[in-house]
Amino acid sequence: MGPTKLEPAVALAELQGSKTERVTIVLLSADFDRVMAAFIIATCAAPMGMQVTMFFTFWGLNVIRKEGATSGAKDLLRRMFGFLNKGGAGRLPLSRFHFGGLGTNMMKRVMQQNRMPGIPELRETAMDLGVKFIACTTTMGMMGVTKDTLIEGVDQLAGVSTYLAEARQGSVNLFI
Amino acid sequence: MGPTKLEPAVALAELQGSKTERVTIVLLSADFDRVMAAFIIATCAAPMGMQVTMFFTFWGLNVIRKEGATSGAKDLLRRMFGFLNKGGAGRLPLSRFHFGGLGTNMMKRVMQQNRMPGIPELRETAMDLGVKFIACTTTMGMMGVTKDTLIEGVDQLAGVSTYLAEARQGSVNLFI
Amino acid sequence: MGPTKLEPAVALAELQGSKTERVTIVLLSADFDRVMAAFIIATCAAPMGMQVTMFFTFWGLNVIRKEGATSGAKDLLRRMFGFLNKGGAGRLPLSRFHFGGLGTNMMKRVMQQNRMPGIPELRETAMDLGVKFIACTTTMGMMGVTKDTLIEGVDQLAGVSTYLAEARQGSVNLFI
Repeated sequence: MGPTKLEPAVALAELQGSKTERVTIVLLSADFDRVMAAFIIATCAAPMGMQVTMFFTFWGLNVIRKEGATSGAKDLLRRMFGFLNKGGAGRLPLSRFHFGGLGTNMMKRVMQQNRMPGIPELRETAMDLGVKFIACTTTMGMMGVTKDTLIEGVDQLAGVSTYLAEARQGSVNLFI
Repeated sequence: MGPTKLEPAVALAELQGSKTERVTIVLLSADFDRVMAAFIIATCAAPMGMQVTMFFTFWGLNVIRKEGATSGAKDLLRRMFGFLNKGGAGRLPLSRFHFGGLGTNMMKRVMQQNRMPGIPELRETAMDLGVKFIACTTTMGMMGVTKDTLIEGVDQLAGVSTYLAEARQGSVNLFI
Repeated sequence: MGPTKLEPAVALAELQGSKTERVTIVLLSADFDRVMAAFIIATCAAPMGMQVTMFFTFWGLNVIRKEGATSGAKDLLRRMFGFLNKGGAGRLPLSRFHFGGLGTNMMKRVMQQNRMPGIPELRETAMDLGVKFIACTTTMGMMGVTKDTLIEGVDQLAGVSTYLAEARQGSVNLFI
């Protein structure tokens, strides 16, 4: 009878009429640091009983593309764009000090030394914790990203109105 | 007697004491993709009955400047800065793969093929839907942007306290 | 008996059961313009009776590092990274038109002409107004930032769950 896909704490909060137990994240960026931040917040919020939705749009779509996937688009223009914009959460650049990969690799090595999970691991943890993944259909076409190049486990392909319907129910709504 | 400028759904929500029916967007960026995302969210939220306010600040001020407008500032320094930072929503660069215009043009052509509206069209739609445009007075001076270089239809020139007064009433508050 | 560290208006709002009187800002960026925006919002919200928390993470940690501080880390890798990523709120680059410092200096000179406060002054004002500063422990290690290189007046060193515990109580939650 009660809500089915919700964590117990979320269900309780909703019964109590609370509106603050949702987190939504629009992930437009594919910068290594911003994507890390998004997943750290998502994987921290879910065990605190918050219902988390991540809405992947523009460059953020790369984060949920299969490793090494180029565009599945048929026309030349979108194929070119999809090629530039290669998939795979394992090789995103830093927003600063990328230095052709040097700075990014340096940070990854520091993370390994500290046994911190990388983006592919955080993404899997997020999925295991029930974080909802939505791929933005409005921008998939623009970015030359097709459905078959997305990883398994994406919950929904939808537009901005689906995102807004979730965001309006919560109060932690971040644009990253 | 009732609120005058509100959409019916917003008015109803406010009578019911709901605080979730507002969307505010601080637009600091003038990257093509981020500006697109801001306008897509705004033009999607308004028809859903949400009261949307966009607060244009720093580079985001370029999005509401007249096409080709350079600075209206009188002193040299601000004129130089205003020149670098030329107006016109039609020629914003992508945050990635701009490639001196190549990447941005490629995305624009994909959008045209899909008959998607560009930024000037989305901006007009936002205005038609009653999205409130506020130009940030605090940063107008810093960016060398004067009132007469702004497009018509900007609702208000105001500071951050005006933005906060709106944001505190809503829950979908994005910084883009 | 009542809350101790809260502004009167916040205490009143909390007694009334309001959830909207908090502002949280995740500051990931160290771009001059984004950091300025974060502090302008923080120092405007606090006098309006809102409880403001700033959560400094990734590059944002530089904003609360001592002037000229390089890494205090012991291993080579983190020291190198800490060096690239030199501290000091006084020398942050613009997100656009930095031009090796030229564009940023130009904006700073415009600000001085208008007698606008710079980032170090805004940061101090924020502290004086009771804005809570939290340094993100999860990313301090990744960025090669140690506790002793942080400025005095940072209220707390904590992880994302501390941020989320504050954010879920408010509605103006920005990611900058």
